[in-house]
Amino acid sequence: MEITFLGTGGSWPSKERNVTSIAYKIGAEVVLFDCGEGTQRQLMFSHLSFMDISRIFITHYHGDHFLGIPGLLQSMALNNRQETVEIYGPEGTVQNITHLLSAGFFNLTYNVLIHEVAPGETIDFESYSITAVRADHSVPTLAYIYQEPPRPGRFDKARALELGVPEGPMFRQLQKGEPVTIGDGTVEPSDVLGPPRRGRKVVYSGDTRISAEIEEASSGADALVHEATLSEEMGERANEYAHATAAEAAALAKRAGVKQLYLVHISPRYKERDVLLEEACAEFGNTIIPDDLEAFKVPLPKK
Amino acid sequence: MEITFLGTGGSWPSKERNVTSIAYKIGAEVVLFDCGEGTQRQLMFSHLSFMDISRIFITHYHGDHFLGIPGLLQSMALNNRQETVEIYGPEGTVQNITHLLSAGFFNLTYNVLIHEVAPGETIDFESYSITAVRADHSVPTLAYIYQEPPRPGRFDKARALELGVPEGPMFRQLQKGEPVTIGDGTVEPSDVLGPPRRGRKVVYSGDTRISAEIEEASSGADALVHEATLSEEMGERANEYAHATAAEAAALAKRAGVKQLYLVHISPRYKERDVLLEEACAEFGNTIIPDDLEAFKVPLPKK
Repeated sequence: MEITFLGTGGSWPSKERNVTSIAYKIGAEVVLFDCGEGTQRQLMFSHLSFMDISRIFITHYHGDHFLGIPGLLQSMALNNRQETVEIYGPEGTVQNITHLLSAGFFNLTYNVLIHEVAPGETIDFESYSITAVRADHSVPTLAYIYQEPPRPGRFDKARALELGVPEGPMFRQLQKGEPVTIGDGTVEPSDVLGPPRRGRKVVYSGDTRISAEIEEASSGADALVHEATLSEEMGERANEYAHATAAEAAALAKRAGVKQLYLVHISPRYKERDVLLEEACAEFGNTIIPDDLEAFKVPLPKK
Repeated sequence: MEITFLGTGGSWPSKERNVTSIAYKIGAEVVLFDCGEGTQRQLMFSHLSFMDISRIFITHYHGDHFLGIPGLLQSMALNNRQETVEIYGPEGTVQNITHLLSAGFFNLTYNVLIHEVAPGETIDFESYSITAVRADHSVPTLAYIYQEPPRPGRFDKARALELGVPEGPMFRQLQKGEPVTIGDGTVEPSDVLGPPRRGRKVVYSGDTRISAEIEEASSGADALVHEATLSEEMGERANEYAHATAAEAAALAKRAGVKQLYLVHISPRYKERDVLLEEACAEFGNTIIPDDLEAFKVPLPKK
């Protein structure tokens, strides 16, 4: 599982950063979180294919988070896409996306399914689930928790051999959680497997003030992608416009026991990341402010 | 007067070319022709300021020509613009732009005036006029003629001095076309000015098959910006999708006596311009296929 930061700027694009979009590569699938204007071109500059996008999750309906949708969908159609695309977002999603797609001559070669998600709702997909969390912004906004199911525990090969299980298909059966029969007896998976290990958890905050709900949602996350529009000097303004500072986001990540923090939605006023990064790292060392198009693998949790 | 090619690609963006937008710098004013997705960021990479845009002319409502409008307008508002922006386009403009601006939370700090223009209609502005011409595309599409009014003829300084006009304010009066009184007599502008010289004429085709109306509109143009989606090899396909080839556009420019031809709306299938440029130049030598962000001055006509 890999996170690619397609656009890391807030409010409007700058030479340095395009507006917000973050791609999770999950197996062969690409899931977008937010889709600001120009996202389709950022995808073309990246190592991802825009045709592999299966789902798009929108945090809220400020232009820098969703105006890339119609162009992306249209380009998929011009490239003869057949697979359904699903769009998820907070209240207003159906109306906003419908308005957007009703402008101009818009012909699709595939289906688009539009879903509104309520805060607290969890949607289960084949290899992961997404839970929506209420963010604290000036308009209805959702943060999203990406969660993989637990994996089976570590396989104790020595113990399995000791119990008379031959190497081969029976090993795989036990690893999948199925008992095997050896002579008169049965070896249970619990005889040879350690405790289940949790899957990856990645949280994306969307635009938000520091929020207790997002802090709780981020507890022990392998990665937290949090907005950090402004520096400490602009803290009051950040709060007024319902945004967070870099230091605030880092302090939250530390309190929540997050493993790796990525700061995004950087205001176009910052040509360099230095001030924001210094302020954040003073609170929490494992902080990265990615450039556009940078990609990071999220390792499997050890426990 | 200068033309900046903000986006020279057709249909969908590629690494090489963004989708269509062309800016005319006219004095302090910037006028956009088409505004595909990502135009605001192209403006930020250019030497132009997105805050200087006064008017936007849309040729038609395929996504690659207009989806950059909402983001651009929103960014102007976030930068506290006060001056009105005017949007012009073919039938459907009011409905399309209204739908587009009704998606999401969209707050403007200035007025947007939306106008529908009929083929054949001329709109007079302070220092130029724009005439809409019906293009031959798959949906209602307008080409646009930019025309400056005639300038006064060349001033014959020697003749003016001979007629007793002293150098200074009276020279300027005559140059502006006003008579001056010298002793008992009057010197008329026609005594010291050559025949009026025409202003610049620049034609932009929008998306179109080769069209007799656009050819007529381009007669003697100082610059023609014509679409050239495909190469000769793809000529049938170009015609089927109501586009032109590079060679067809160049032949039209030659027939129309155009001074300089710029080819745009290049299909993303062409990573290099070579084939298109060779085919065009075989028909008409004064052909340029600009890169994104290239700018060209349009000289004043000599006569």
